[in-house]
Amino acid sequence: MDKKKPLILVVNDDGVTAPGIRTLIRLMKKLGDVIVVAPDGPQSGMGHAITLDSTLHVERVHIDKGEQVEYACSGTPVDCVKLAMNKLVPKRPDLCVSGINHGSNSSINVLYSGTMSAAVEGAIEGIPSIGFSLLDYSHDADFSQCEEYVIKIAKQVLENSLPKGTCLNVNIPNVKKEEFKGIRICRQANGNWHEEFDERISPQGKTYYWLTGKFVNYDKGEDTDIWALENNYISVVPVMFDVTAHHVIQQLNSWNHG
Amino acid sequence: MDKKKPLILVVNDDGVTAPGIRTLIRLMKKLGDVIVVAPDGPQSGMGHAITLDSTLHVERVHIDKGEQVEYACSGTPVDCVKLAMNKLVPKRPDLCVSGINHGSNSSINVLYSGTMSAAVEGAIEGIPSIGFSLLDYSHDADFSQCEEYVIKIAKQVLENSLPKGTCLNVNIPNVKKEEFKGIRICRQANGNWHEEFDERISPQGKTYYWLTGKFVNYDKGEDTDIWALENNYISVVPVMFDVTAHHVIQQLNSWNHG
Repeated sequence: MDKKKPLILVVNDDGVTAPGIRTLIRLMKKLGDVIVVAPDGPQSGMGHAITLDSTLHVERVHIDKGEQVEYACSGTPVDCVKLAMNKLVPKRPDLCVSGINHGSNSSINVLYSGTMSAAVEGAIEGIPSIGFSLLDYSHDADFSQCEEYVIKIAKQVLENSLPKGTCLNVNIPNVKKEEFKGIRICRQANGNWHEEFDERISPQGKTYYWLTGKFVNYDKGEDTDIWALENNYISVVPVMFDVTAHHVIQQLNSWNHG
Repeated sequence: MDKKKPLILVVNDDGVTAPGIRTLIRLMKKLGDVIVVAPDGPQSGMGHAITLDSTLHVERVHIDKGEQVEYACSGTPVDCVKLAMNKLVPKRPDLCVSGINHGSNSSINVLYSGTMSAAVEGAIEGIPSIGFSLLDYSHDADFSQCEEYVIKIAKQVLENSLPKGTCLNVNIPNVKKEEFKGIRICRQANGNWHEEFDERISPQGKTYYWLTGKFVNYDKGEDTDIWALENNYISVVPVMFDVTAHHVIQQLNSWNHG
């Protein structure tokens, strides 16, 4: 390990063998030494979950050739960051990158996303952190068109760091390289999911459900991530882990507290 | 079901049989009709996780006597809210309450907490929502001293609603009734966990870990939830689901995006 090279921690939520993280590892190796601590299987939609009632296992793995050190972990994406920081990294990482997620983490999806929660956990640990997502859910998603932008943004963060208490939520539209209009700093669009639970009957006659639904965007603002993505921009939303609604504290103080 | 009475959705993360939710159900019945949709087992630390890769089961249960309608769900606290809203409630709830959690959800714990994520999900659905937590992790926690305050806060929210896009994170110190100094509207203290993974060897010779650690508060502000709790106040933090760091958008715009 080169002492002068930055150390980059790579995590994700689709699991250590997912094409998205394999791309991200390959790209980060151009910028520094890479340590990978990723779930041993899919952990999509795990949000900021941590493993309290169960044990955690970690195994050294060798998936692609190269000097990167890789671990597969039985826990959630946030567990991976915690284990990495406390047990696995040889020194404090200079950057934590999560993804590249197969599918969008724009708007309210930032809360459900294991990819983004791993980046938020990196920020809580005080490491400049970025979550990357490509708007293509398929396993065969083509990550090649966005490589240049992923490197560019990671380099910027390595050089400039990030404001305290924040990380970046980067979403990349699924378009050809020549169609990208550039990078746009955005706010999270105000949208959510309209669930349509798929109700089925098991062979044993018991009712069960699959969570499914449709994303609905109420927010036409041109400063939102959804607008940027629909207009072929790469959206970059600064995300913070202080979730206090500071702007309503005064209003609540007018309540009669007794 | 009384058409004039408010409908109150009760959820939690400790599971439908936990003493905390049994207390909350009993208290909410004084304010309206109650429907309970809670996990069928402990779901602490599940954050905003949702079940994407597995099926969900829901069963009507009868635990305590009374008119409340209760369901036990196989999913996470957020799944419970989604299922409730889309499959189980007879009409739109007027209030969603989560808890009473066995243990603190102050400071950064708001992100890991299934209790608070259920309340946040209620807010995303547009329902005035509150998460309640008592600073006592034990199963035998005494919830009696805080009953008056839980009712008071729930009543206030039923009467005044809450500002759009927010819910309340209410934490209650573990002190005697006469020691409570009242309610204090606060911001989330800037603290986090210093993990100390407990490393063990299985009978099969394999290393495994238990996640453990110590909470560290860096924030001495008298406007924080931690300060309030340490000084015997009930802390009320307004929490929002827009996690955009709006204050740094301008700074990031000064980057060279190319």
